[in-house]
Amino acid sequence: MASSGHTIKAFDDELDQLRGSIAQMGGLAEEAIKEAMRALVQRDTEAAARVVENDKKIDALEAEVERTAVQIIALRAPMADDLRDVVAALKIAGVVERIGDYAKNIAKRVPVLEQMGKIAPLALLPEMGRIAGEMVGNVLNAFAARDAQAALAVCERDEALDNFYNSIFRTLLTFMMENPNNITQATHLLFIAKNLERVGDHATNVAEMVYFAATGEKMAERSKGADPAEG
Amino acid sequence: MASSGHTIKAFDDELDQLRGSIAQMGGLAEEAIKEAMRALVQRDTEAAARVVENDKKIDALEAEVERTAVQIIALRAPMADDLRDVVAALKIAGVVERIGDYAKNIAKRVPVLEQMGKIAPLALLPEMGRIAGEMVGNVLNAFAARDAQAALAVCERDEALDNFYNSIFRTLLTFMMENPNNITQATHLLFIAKNLERVGDHATNVAEMVYFAATGEKMAERSKGADPAEG
Repeated sequence: MASSGHTIKAFDDELDQLRGSIAQMGGLAEEAIKEAMRALVQRDTEAAARVVENDKKIDALEAEVERTAVQIIALRAPMADDLRDVVAALKIAGVVERIGDYAKNIAKRVPVLEQMGKIAPLALLPEMGRIAGEMVGNVLNAFAARDAQAALAVCERDEALDNFYNSIFRTLLTFMMENPNNITQATHLLFIAKNLERVGDHATNVAEMVYFAATGEKMAERSKGADPAEG
Repeated sequence: MASSGHTIKAFDDELDQLRGSIAQMGGLAEEAIKEAMRALVQRDTEAAARVVENDKKIDALEAEVERTAVQIIALRAPMADDLRDVVAALKIAGVVERIGDYAKNIAKRVPVLEQMGKIAPLALLPEMGRIAGEMVGNVLNAFAARDAQAALAVCERDEALDNFYNSIFRTLLTFMMENPNNITQATHLLFIAKNLERVGDHATNVAEMVYFAATGEKMAERSKGADPAEG
């Protein structure tokens, strides 16, 4: 329902603004995961505190995306594909905000762990963090490029992440069984691994949305890799 | 931007349809939590399998809410409060869908736990499940009634849930330390407690949205009860 004030260029600019905010959120979320994991490995409580603080920027951007989306809907009366794009942007912003929360939750455990002794180095965790962070970056690139194949690739990577999770879970169980003194610390690391596994799930959720937006078809059902028997 | 086809009654009917779908989702999610916890306590793997299967109904309702919301936006061009109501309905449907997922994840652990021996009865867990389920029911009633005070009450209840979580965490740690044979089972129960704590968080997220929609103001910041030191 076009009015005389509606120009295609202004609408495109606003959609670009929306996409830009999401890209910005994605970059911050990816950085948060990276920094939280670095702080964990290096027991850097100040870096961890910065991750927690910076999460507010991600939350603020999500609020901005919501305001812009509502404004676009109210002023431009988008139809069909444009309307679905705006709704998808709203949903994706929500998912990215939750990814940021997982990074923040990881960072919150750093000062707690720093109080405890050193656990046998768990090299799998930082590697899992790297994969989760890359999935976030890749899926947001796929979103920006409307690239269905890139979105599919992110979903396929989730299986590797789930395998990491299962291995870390088993490794931590053995630490706990070997020595009760390890239990508390191992439990924290277990939750961190679970947070990373959830980041991967969220990245695949976004990938499914990107795929659908790009192709009009739902992605084929994937078998879930994380064995509930492993946690 | 009213057209000759736009009637207030049709619009109200569509908004009611939206709200009705969310109420239905909420009822299913609350039932899922209750059934998952009952299946856990009674080691009823068939009941647990039904919870997992029934989650699809919740997912289907969320897709329906999204379609209806997009349709309302496209056909009715809602403005101001009406538009915010539709966007809020979209967001709340997403949160309730995630609450359903937590119930499903709890149910998925039941057959795994059923294979293991009986752990000392953990009466706190079913009680925690009851509180979490009530919070979901109460917040959706608050949503239906646009009741800001009821929404506030749900947020205040979250502290009790977090206290339960902390107690269960500590209790499970002692079980793990007492006997390494308990560790695997205790870890599953820990994840279940974490899922319930997250259900409470999601219920409070919805409460904040309901409060804002009803009053136009953000709810006051609450101190987070769950101590990261406890997990």
